[in-house]
Amino acid sequence: MKLKVYAERMSQPSRAVIIFCKVNGIDYEEIKVDISKRQHLTPEFADINPMKKVPAIVDGRFKLFESHAILIYLACAFPGVADHWYPADLFKRSKIHSVLDWHHSNLRHGAVTYVLNTTLAPALGLPLNPRAAAEAEKLLTSSLSKIESIWLKGSGRFLLGGNQP
Amino acid sequence: MKLKVYAERMSQPSRAVIIFCKVNGIDYEEIKVDISKRQHLTPEFADINPMKKVPAIVDGRFKLFESHAILIYLACAFPGVADHWYPADLFKRSKIHSVLDWHHSNLRHGAVTYVLNTTLAPALGLPLNPRAAAEAEKLLTSSLSKIESIWLKGSGRFLLGGNQP
Repeated sequence: MKLKVYAERMSQPSRAVIIFCKVNGIDYEEIKVDISKRQHLTPEFADINPMKKVPAIVDGRFKLFESHAILIYLACAFPGVADHWYPADLFKRSKIHSVLDWHHSNLRHGAVTYVLNTTLAPALGLPLNPRAAAEAEKLLTSSLSKIESIWLKGSGRFLLGGNQP
Repeated sequence: MKLKVYAERMSQPSRAVIIFCKVNGIDYEEIKVDISKRQHLTPEFADINPMKKVPAIVDGRFKLFESHAILIYLACAFPGVADHWYPADLFKRSKIHSVLDWHHSNLRHGAVTYVLNTTLAPALGLPLNPRAAAEAEKLLTSSLSKIESIWLKGSGRFLLGGNQP
């Protein structure tokens, strides 16, 4: 049975999963969960992901949510994914976990809070919060600068100094 | 050479790493990084963790930060850690990644923002932000209730329905 990806392309984590599938030739069916129509809040979707968030996947009988967990699962479960995406080597793999964990509380948190509180909130029936937006902008700027000065350190073109993502 | 754990026991992620070492009989040396004295901002500590946050570890020539990445590394690198902590089975392991990722943006984000903005901020030279505290309290409450209704679903005593952590 084909992998099902429940996604909303407005969502960065959804796009990450879709792009990963495309780049790695993973055959999948995309099922749009329209957040502006609150489709993520339906009982049908809660059966896929009880947290009511996108993205989520269903692979046969296996259900999974949280985009980083999904990306790692796909890298392990589909034989065509090259090792550099999620290396078998423990030290390299641990550094990738470190980047992914850092992303949660820094780049992602800054970006989503900024976009939500400057633009997106009204479309989702929420108020804009300029103070939260200002703090998120600081976090976002500092996160982007840390990508330059720390994660891209060295001669590599990608995070952790490698020549491949 | 003994594993070095750079930690501040006031920090939940630091405590998680220390407790994991103790429970699993991992021999380590704890190096206190006193946040109230800004020791995490020194150039010496930036050489351990360029993000200037605790916890961080040094294991021989290998340096790592971000607590979840550290916990996974320890589970893989030290042979005495039982499989249930970080199962070799891809499906079980993926569910653990999902819990850890969820923790970042929900339980941890709610808890740290609430504690910071109701109590801790002045000790770190920061202002209290009652609105951020109120929003964090909502996220924290909702996260705790999701732990009860989703992660602890079933007859297990631990997350994901197991009888072991």
